[in-house]
Amino acid sequence: MPFVTVKIARGHSIEKKRHLVEAITDALVTALDTKPEWITIHIDEFERENWAVNGILHCDRHRGRHDETGR
Amino acid sequence: MPFVTVKIARGHSIEKKRHLVEAITDALVTALDTKPEWITIHIDEFERENWAVNGILHCDRHRGRHDETGR
Amino acid sequence: MPFVTVKIARGHSIEKKRHLVEAITDALVTALDTKPEWITIHIDEFERENWAVNGILHCDRHRGRHDETGR
Amino acid sequence: MPFVTVKIARGHSIEKKRHLVEAITDALVTALDTKPEWITIHIDEFERENWAVNGILHCDRHRGRHDETGR
Amino acid sequence: MPFVTVKIARGHSIEKKRHLVEAITDALVTALDTKPEWITIHIDEFERENWAVNGILHCDRHRGRHDETGR
Amino acid sequence: MPFVTVKIARGHSIEKKRHLVEAITDALVTALDTKPEWITIHIDEFERENWAVNGILHCDRHRGRHDETGR
Repeated sequence: MPFVTVKIARGHSIEKKRHLVEAITDALVTALDTKPEWITIHIDEFERENWAVNGILHCDRHRGRHDETGR
Repeated sequence: MPFVTVKIARGHSIEKKRHLVEAITDALVTALDTKPEWITIHIDEFERENWAVNGILHCDRHRGRHDETGR
Repeated sequence: MPFVTVKIARGHSIEKKRHLVEAITDALVTALDTKPEWITIHIDEFERENWAVNGILHCDRHRGRHDETGR
Repeated sequence: MPFVTVKIARGHSIEKKRHLVEAITDALVTALDTKPEWITIHIDEFERENWAVNGILHCDRHRGRHDETGR
Repeated sequence: MPFVTVKIARGHSIEKKRHLVEAITDALVTALDTKPEWITIHIDEFERENWAVNGILHCDRHRGRHDETGR
Repeated sequence: MPFVTVKIARGHSIEKKRHLVEAITDALVTALDTKPEWITIHIDEFERENWAVNGILHCDRHRGRHDETGR
């Protein structure tokens, strides 16, 4: 029954996605005592020109600044 | 005023989408006694490598298993 | 597999909600040739002070204006 | 940067929610090699009269049927 | 802490997106007395064949009608 | 046509919400050259026990820490 949406930047390999949905499913099963077959996960990828923190698009951030703010 | 989001796998024809938004609009008009021009619908398509049930990405499912679980 | 979210104003009776989820499920089954048991629907109710069109909260709208704009 | 929404039925204790956000955060850190302070999680609780599978509101389901369908 | 999603039709230039996230961030800072670095914005673009008002896909609308309804 | 969702902590006054939807509407009109009557905004309030950053629920954060991390 739980429905999970994960918004992440585009570009992760299918291996990472495979690992991600297994790990999230395990997290919900353990924490909520639910069954894995009841859990649906949607990975909602965004382009870096469609995401902003502090009023700045991600595609415009310098790596240094990105690291500095921890975002 | 109602706003509807429909998450479905990518790959439906525009004819099916046309039919879908007509049918959902009719459903809301009938059930809620609202007007069709107040209803907005967003079809949010996902790739099969971005959707998982039971900890398994859809692109990794065998058709047999897919049918078996009814998902 | 389809996941539907319907955002509507709070205050509909459970009978209307019952009718609503039946009608939307039928709409998807017919339009997409999917099975009803694969369809999940979330009714996401909002308070009128949390919804705005044209920069005006719904709780601040006069009925006359509301009718006029068709929203 | 990842933003996670978890839709679950209302009624989980704060201890379970605490466990849930820790476990999901760990899952993302491990699978995506990201940092925990970049991860935001929103637990979006729904009432059982606002969730439906197979065209049936959750509040209308008999426990037996619920178990049977695994949902 | 605020998280904003903006659903708009695909096709806006990066300059418009840059302006958009600055303007929304300013709006939240002013209205809620929050800090810009706490605000995350996701621009969620849709295709015109995936958006409908009044039961009609946007890609099927005539410009005249589009203008007439103000949508 | 644009649809905006703003997730913020519960507890803002209606005056702040009124200001918020005006300011966001202006932001979109200016940045995207759209009309205010086409813009819908949903304020989606969350409880502090339903939001987490860094694996910690907001209701569990000490004010000091909250300020320190800027979240």
